[in-house]
Amino acid sequence: MKITVVTSNPNKATEVAAFFGDEVEVTHVALECPEYRDDDVGEIARQKAAFAFEKVGSPVIVDDTGFYISHLNGFPGPYAAYVLDTIGLEGILNLMGGATDRTGYFETAIAYADETGITIFRGRVEGVIVSPRGSDGFGYDPIFEVNGRTFAEYPLNEKAAVSHRGRALAAFRDFITSQTHNENC
Amino acid sequence: MKITVVTSNPNKATEVAAFFGDEVEVTHVALECPEYRDDDVGEIARQKAAFAFEKVGSPVIVDDTGFYISHLNGFPGPYAAYVLDTIGLEGILNLMGGATDRTGYFETAIAYADETGITIFRGRVEGVIVSPRGSDGFGYDPIFEVNGRTFAEYPLNEKAAVSHRGRALAAFRDFITSQTHNENC
Repeated sequence: MKITVVTSNPNKATEVAAFFGDEVEVTHVALECPEYRDDDVGEIARQKAAFAFEKVGSPVIVDDTGFYISHLNGFPGPYAAYVLDTIGLEGILNLMGGATDRTGYFETAIAYADETGITIFRGRVEGVIVSPRGSDGFGYDPIFEVNGRTFAEYPLNEKAAVSHRGRALAAFRDFITSQTHNENC
Repeated sequence: MKITVVTSNPNKATEVAAFFGDEVEVTHVALECPEYRDDDVGEIARQKAAFAFEKVGSPVIVDDTGFYISHLNGFPGPYAAYVLDTIGLEGILNLMGGATDRTGYFETAIAYADETGITIFRGRVEGVIVSPRGSDGFGYDPIFEVNGRTFAEYPLNEKAAVSHRGRALAAFRDFITSQTHNENC
């Protein structure tokens, strides 16, 4: 099976390719998709996938990821990338100050589009906001701790086992596996 | 002349009505327009106006406003409303800390849509970020100072003379006035 990952973020494409290994032939197209402002990453991913499928013309996946911090009323939410580009990790940690509630979660929605339509797969992971540690990963990974390690302290293959994107990809893999079985029946 | 202001924020509708007084009959429709994520408020306003004109069926104006703080690399930018709803004025002031560069600006883009197309009018105002003062206005008005007063210390009619939205509305008024003259020639 061949799938095109459409994203302007090469780190995301790398995570998808690492997840599937030899199972699926993953190619990467760096296409900027227009994004709706919406509180739901699933809706944003759906819109992007519709655009990407029209452009690429073969099965595509796109993702949209939000980062929701309890103490900040869900900020930065779906605007995680923009917030990182402007105020950065330092800004997030400033806003947290000495807050006792350090909980937050990542949510990824993967939208898979082919000629039959668009399907959404979600993955979520809960963690706590900590001072930066580790040098792997990207984005908020250094300040997001799950099971005693920040995401920047996980090797890529281990991160996939617990991460939001890994969980969404696992749901997607179940879907394409069952589809392939159906086709073979 | 009749114009429908399409916004889910009643404060914006009030500012537009106050600006025009008896000149223009302003009605307000509280319609949620889908918004693209875009760095440019003009593009966002254009998309919303296209949607609103299709729904309303008569001339409409919509606006989109961004708030850009130099010390925060332009944050919160086009996500001003979302940021206010989550981290609030307190969050912005935390992020500013003791920064010596307190400058920032508001930019409003007004998109006017009628059967001939969509036209964009922009207004911008520079100011400085201060501790909250005043009880008029809405949004970031209490922490945004222009000519020694915060926007929350300006009465509505005085605010229109200096504000981003007032300047965009003035450009729009020039346009419709010249259009009306042309029609009379």
